[in-house]
This record gives sequence, C-alpha cells and structure tokens, in this order.
Amino acid sequence: MEVKVMKNILGENDKIAAENRKLFNDKNILVINLMGSPGSGKTSLLEKTLSKLAEKINVAVIEGDLFTVKDAERIERQNVPVVQINTAGGCHLDAAMVRRAVESLNLDELNLIIVENVGNLVCPAEFDVGENFKAVVLSITEGDDKPLKYPLIFKESAVTLLNKIDLLPYTNFNLENARADLTTIHPNIKIIETSCTTGAGLDEFCDFILMEVKKL
Amino acid sequence: MEVKVMKNILGENDKIAAENRKLFNDKNILVINLMGSPGSGKTSLLEKTLSKLAEKINVAVIEGDLFTVKDAERIERQNVPVVQINTAGGCHLDAAMVRRAVESLNLDELNLIIVENVGNLVCPAEFDVGENFKAVVLSITEGDDKPLKYPLIFKESAVTLLNKIDLLPYTNFNLENARADLTTIHPNIKIIETSCTTGAGLDEFCDFILMEVKKL
Repeated sequence: MEVKVMKNILGENDKIAAENRKLFNDKNILVINLMGSPGSGKTSLLEKTLSKLAEKINVAVIEGDLFTVKDAERIERQNVPVVQINTAGGCHLDAAMVRRAVESLNLDELNLIIVENVGNLVCPAEFDVGENFKAVVLSITEGDDKPLKYPLIFKESAVTLLNKIDLLPYTNFNLENARADLTTIHPNIKIIETSCTTGAGLDEFCDFILMEVKKL
Repeated sequence: MEVKVMKNILGENDKIAAENRKLFNDKNILVINLMGSPGSGKTSLLEKTLSKLAEKINVAVIEGDLFTVKDAERIERQNVPVVQINTAGGCHLDAAMVRRAVESLNLDELNLIIVENVGNLVCPAEFDVGENFKAVVLSITEGDDKPLKYPLIFKESAVTLLNKIDLLPYTNFNLENARADLTTIHPNIKIIETSCTTGAGLDEFCDFILMEVKKL
C-alpha cells in the first residue's frame, strides 16, 4: 500500500519534471540539482563560485530549505537572482516546487539555474526536478564510507565534489578508497576536490559548468 | 491528499511506537533514538562509549542503514549485541522496523538499547520508534547554522552532542551562537561537546546515559 502511494507520487513528479525539462531545454538553460548532507558546504560553494560564473553567463539560484531564508540571503549578497522554496519540513525538493519557483525568474535572460536542494543525502536523489544533471557535495569530514552507505545519490549524480579538502590532514578520510568506491558505484562520475577555505578546485568546478552550458 | 496519507502513516506509526514503549517500559529498558546527519559521527560515538557502558550495564544496539551492514560490523567489534535494519533506501527508521529488530534481542537481559537511525537531519525526527528520548549528533564541521535550519530534530531531542569539537579551530563554527540557537529552539536541551579523536565529553555522555538508566 505504502509502495503504491510512493509510486503514484513519483509518477506524478516525473511528469512535472519532464515538463520542467522541456521548458529549460526550450529556453536553452542548463539546470543543476545540487545535493548533499546538511553542512557539506553547498551554499559556501555557491558563494565562492557564483561571481566567477556571473562574469561569463547569466545565472540564477533556487534555494531549498525547510523553514529559513538563511541560504537565500547568503546567495543574494552575490548579486545573483535567487528564489527561496520553503518546504515547511519536507525533506527534499520536488518538480512542482521547482516549477513554481521558476515562475519568478526571467527565463529569457538566463543560461544557468542552480537548484540547491534540502540538506539530505537520501530523499533528494529520488526526485527528478527537471535538471540536466545532479551534483553531490560530500565533505571530507563526513567520512569515506558515505558513497557505499548512500549509493543512490552518487549513482544519480554526474559530479561529486569532495569538499573541505583542506581538512583532510585532520581526519582519517581515505581519499583513494573514496575515489574507488565512487567509481564502482558510478563508473563515469566526475570527481572534483574542492575547498572554500583555500579555493582549491573552484576554478575546475566553474570550468566544468561553463563547458556544460556551452554544449547546449 | 498527500497530507492525509502522511497523517495515516504517522498515526499507524504512533500506535506501534506506543506498543514498543510499553514493552520497553515493562522490561525496564532505556531506549535512545540516536540521530544526526550522515558523517556526524554517530557510529564513532557508539564505538567509543559502548565498552564503557557495557562495564556497568547490559546494552544492545539497533543499527539503521539504507543498504550496508558497515556500521553493524563496527558495533559488533565492541562485543555488544547488534541488530541491523536495512531500510532498502528508506530515509528513516519507523516503529515497526524497530519492533521487528527487537524480536532478535533478549529483552530480559538488557538495561539499554541504542537505536542508531539513518543518517538524516530531517525525516527521522518525525517518527517515534518508542524511545525514552531522542539524541542528535551535530558535528562542528556541519556549521553553526544547522539548529535554525533543521529545528524539528533539535526540538525533539533531549540531548545534542556537539561532536568533532577537536576540529573547532579549523572551522568558522561559532559555539556561542550555536548554543544560543539550540536553547532558543529547545530551552531544556542538554548540550555535550564531544570528540572521538581526543575523547572529550565521552565520559559526560556515558554518565548522562547511566543516570537515565538508573532513573527507570
């Protein structure tokens, strides 16, 4: 019974996600669904890369959060259009939420929308919002066992950002093991090591995005 | 419609949770529902405290995980009875899962069961499993904004463990702000600063648990 309900919800979500995808495609906009645990550094990564991206393309951000507008306020300071979705306790964004958020953006002027999902390594991976690809942020301090423990999100993501790489010396995170596990789960996954403290990998992340925008 | 389905699920869960609670109460067992983000350090905290606890009381662990038995294997090495629940992708434990897990434990010989929930700062907070109290692990590297961003789980928890406190000097985590926010959300919340690397706070955590066991 529960499974049936879940299937209906997912089926309905997929329909709206397909409509979103068609709209983004028609408008020639790349959409990235950015996911990761609470505190993995999703918003900090956006803070550090948006201005670099905005020099070359027109970018907007959709911010998912349970209740607050804290992240949206941080993004707004980067002078980038931002729309806040409050899920009122909901643990992920769905396609309908993103469709409503997109109504407040001028799609004719955009090349890129980054959707920052609710901090959660489980549920967001199950819900297509109409993105071109998913990206997942895994911070070094979370531990190298996370890819095998939460495989779906890494399987679904085109890119993994191994964030807070500056903290590697203070943890027992085994980079080699993590890379091997990620590649087992998702052989073509792109892995970028990043740090918002040292700036490591941020140019590589921006270049990757800009290349994907160009492909459209 | 979705809300109604959710209410039915929660209503059914609460019924089973009440049955679990009665059973634990009859058997004089304290049950702790341990929650936190992926990588906040829940399993490491158990690894570091179980042997101390086991010197004084009989303790068992129920391990929630999406697919793997990695955490259960770590707990087993502490020579403590452990039952694995695999949620097959589900983002939280519910009361029925815990009831099934408990069937493999000898309840007449136990004083304490610690239920380690799926790594997730959102969904587990909504599901009562029949515990005496919830405890949430927030690691310093997740950032001091998390209590306000994920208020329900801190509101529902009797204790917050501020874990990885040894990494404080390498982050911009503001301890004073975090403590103030936690107390605003939940005025009576107990806050313990812990580190599995330095051992800080682990005795305090054990003493707190032992005192709660004594109260039964």
